[in-house]
Amino acid sequence: MAKDQKKQPRPKAETPKGFRDYFGADVTERKQMLDRIAAIYHRHGFDPLETSAVETVEALGKFLPDVDRPNAGVFAWQEEAVPGGGTAGDWLALRYDLTAPLARVAAQFRNDLPSPYRRYAMGPVWRNEKPGPGRFRQFYQCDADTVGSASVAADAEICAMLADALEAVGIDRGDFMVRINNRKVLNGVLEAASVSADQADDVLRTIDKFDKVGREGVLALLTTGRRDDSGAQIDGVGLTAEQAAPVLAFLTSKGEDNAATLANLRAAVGASAIGAEGVDELTQIADMLAAMGVAEDRAVIDPSVVRGLGYYTGPVFEAELTFEILDEKGRKRQFGSVAGGGRYDGLVERFTGQKVPATGVSIGVDRLLAALRAKGLAGETDIGPVVVTVMDRDRMSDYQSMAADLRAAGIRAEVYLGNPKNFGNQLKYADKRGAPVAIIQGGNEAERGVVQVKDLVLGARIAAEATLDEWKSQPAQTEVSRADLVAEVRRILG
Amino acid sequence: MAKDQKKQPRPKAETPKGFRDYFGADVTERKQMLDRIAAIYHRHGFDPLETSAVETVEALGKFLPDVDRPNAGVFAWQEEAVPGGGTAGDWLALRYDLTAPLARVAAQFRNDLPSPYRRYAMGPVWRNEKPGPGRFRQFYQCDADTVGSASVAADAEICAMLADALEAVGIDRGDFMVRINNRKVLNGVLEAASVSADQADDVLRTIDKFDKVGREGVLALLTTGRRDDSGAQIDGVGLTAEQAAPVLAFLTSKGEDNAATLANLRAAVGASAIGAEGVDELTQIADMLAAMGVAEDRAVIDPSVVRGLGYYTGPVFEAELTFEILDEKGRKRQFGSVAGGGRYDGLVERFTGQKVPATGVSIGVDRLLAALRAKGLAGETDIGPVVVTVMDRDRMSDYQSMAADLRAAGIRAEVYLGNPKNFGNQLKYADKRGAPVAIIQGGNEAERGVVQVKDLVLGARIAAEATLDEWKSQPAQTEVSRADLVAEVRRILG
Repeated sequence: MAKDQKKQPRPKAETPKGFRDYFGADVTERKQMLDRIAAIYHRHGFDPLETSAVETVEALGKFLPDVDRPNAGVFAWQEEAVPGGGTAGDWLALRYDLTAPLARVAAQFRNDLPSPYRRYAMGPVWRNEKPGPGRFRQFYQCDADTVGSASVAADAEICAMLADALEAVGIDRGDFMVRINNRKVLNGVLEAASVSADQADDVLRTIDKFDKVGREGVLALLTTGRRDDSGAQIDGVGLTAEQAAPVLAFLTSKGEDNAATLANLRAAVGASAIGAEGVDELTQIADMLAAMGVAEDRAVIDPSVVRGLGYYTGPVFEAELTFEILDEKGRKRQFGSVAGGGRYDGLVERFTGQKVPATGVSIGVDRLLAALRAKGLAGETDIGPVVVTVMDRDRMSDYQSMAADLRAAGIRAEVYLGNPKNFGNQLKYADKRGAPVAIIQGGNEAERGVVQVKDLVLGARIAAEATLDEWKSQPAQTEVSRADLVAEVRRILG
Repeated sequence: MAKDQKKQPRPKAETPKGFRDYFGADVTERKQMLDRIAAIYHRHGFDPLETSAVETVEALGKFLPDVDRPNAGVFAWQEEAVPGGGTAGDWLALRYDLTAPLARVAAQFRNDLPSPYRRYAMGPVWRNEKPGPGRFRQFYQCDADTVGSASVAADAEICAMLADALEAVGIDRGDFMVRINNRKVLNGVLEAASVSADQADDVLRTIDKFDKVGREGVLALLTTGRRDDSGAQIDGVGLTAEQAAPVLAFLTSKGEDNAATLANLRAAVGASAIGAEGVDELTQIADMLAAMGVAEDRAVIDPSVVRGLGYYTGPVFEAELTFEILDEKGRKRQFGSVAGGGRYDGLVERFTGQKVPATGVSIGVDRLLAALRAKGLAGETDIGPVVVTVMDRDRMSDYQSMAADLRAAGIRAEVYLGNPKNFGNQLKYADKRGAPVAIIQGGNEAERGVVQVKDLVLGARIAAEATLDEWKSQPAQTEVSRADLVAEVRRILG
């Protein structure tokens, strides 16, 4: 035997590096959260779409067909010659997000889908990247997009829906804010400031640091440069102070309410037509949100939202949780962003040559779930099963009958199925299962037609706090007739 | 432009061969079915487990490390050198079922998991096989297994749970049957018939054809052979008629009730100890099912269940739907099997060297869903949204307010977001969306504070059946005050 084992070493029982398993509440808490979000999306007229995990690399589209192995960031492989299967040599890959498959679907089924097409999608995506703490190579995304509508009504609707979704998962009003900005307003500001096309990208990269370096930092970086914390000199974009002023005015134009903010923005864009269009769009969005009952305590125009301004082409939105949590060093900080999105063009253009306007939002599933856990809002409903212990292995049918009665009353219950010899093991098992109650019936109890019902939650508290005398009196365990089993368990759980 | 396109041809917007997308009700109907099954499994004390889609080929374990490319039936690829990522050269693969990952988990977390470990898992698996009609390279599985219990109480519990799950998804009592057999009984029969170890595999292969060739066919194949429909001679196993008799007795020993069947089986196994053990196990299972309230109209001992007898080591079970459907040729036939399972050993032995007993069941997700659809039991709850049409694009806020009011009342509703110019397109869109109701408010109605509420379901019926006069009177459309919008829509939907 030992020799055989040397020849054929045992395989390692391990998840691949960067992958993980989800157990019990990991699964149910996420599922409950996503179900609540899906219900909101569905009620807004969004239809679910579930694409396959596997796409052709050609359709995913980030990779060049002439590269030997398209490995940059995705898990990809070449089709084998499977009789009747794929074409040998074709590259397949696991999807790296939910937007690329949406683009493929919107092109492939453009004659069949309603237009505009509202869809939501939830599921795992895969990235062939370096894993790290909290960073896995498979993780969940949750997206909602409207394809085929150029109207800002689509953007406003998604912002309202996002606010509804955050409330639906349990975030209190006042604990989150949907912030809305517009790339067109920034374009207008750049036009008003006579920023050249060459400099625009540098300006975008610079304002992306607004969150980190603040007003003065951005001013320095837009103009002559600054020293960073390490003392290194960072070159500036080379704008004049006069050019930088409207950019800063844009970033800091948030007023007391939407009306004030919009007035500030209108001033910042000056005579720019694209800028005026952007401010008009934000004005419409603000009006529509109000019409949908989403007041400024839930969604607000906020030009300091800069994330994604480089990628999106119109309205941009971000949802932040505003309550404080303790970070890993015990310092209070705001929880921060849990969702983002905006309007983008050219979703299906790669496939069809036609520009199709689209707008959408993506919720950071792991972050939002972490927030719910931090607030004690996840998994309240998941309790362990009532465990029916086994005192006499010849009477398994009796124990199974008890568990069946409990289940018929809607109570989660199971019979202990391990070796019943050591009763202590059964209680340890019940503890590991998070069982709130254990049921015990030995031969003596069976003869008398009774069962012992042990309140494990109360028992644990007594064990931790009670004196020996109190412990001995075992008030956490009651004897009831078999007929009263369900009622007694219900009383304890209630 | 045309030239550019030639240089860089557009990618094809296509799913890879053998893969598919799920839209709308495809997703919600399956989800509803799986949610109901999960609720039953959870109530029985089973915990959800979600492993990653990707496993090491080593852990999946069907493949030899010395084969250049382990491509037999799975999608596999070699790890690239990702800094900090996996080890370059390691083979990864998509899981091909949910049992192999369970084996890996049971070994990897054996010190942390409760023992016995009851778990359910639902999710896609991938097969690199030839696709065909209704046969895809990604499909769903839904499994429940108990790992670490040798007790037949675990088998009985899974049979009872399976019956509960089928009722929970909507299959009426009387329309399904869980049938239970036992490999040990067959072993006992083979022993009683003095079938040699060499012949046992051939006998197993032969009785696997019982469903197809019936009693006489199996008798011929067990003894001297037979001619098949094409006239070809098929060799027999070479048993004597005396040896074959107990095997046939076993296959046909189903009596009027479990008691009669068990008596027949006890006779068939003669003096075999393993056979007696098998009959004892079935007797216990029958008793336990009765104790759990699962009578013989839902689960029954049935020795004609032969599928899986070669693979499983103890109890074997199968769930069949007994109602008739029309097949593709319009002939009535029983729907047949939708789930199967049984007891197996050595789940984690590959990893740890220890035999761990396990038992489980797998529901054929696509087949069960097809059955629900055939019976009109899937997707009753999925209706299209109320569509608020757009008569005046300057009043989008008004339309959004209507949709928001409907949603606040729990009614699925959306505003039309396409180009509103052609009103006919809006009604076509509503039709495509399966909208039950359309809301219309032009300038005239807005001034008067009213809306038109169009019952599209009634309208379609009238359009199909009514005379021109009836059609003109448009009884499917009513005018109500804006304040009564929600009540009127609710009345139509109710």
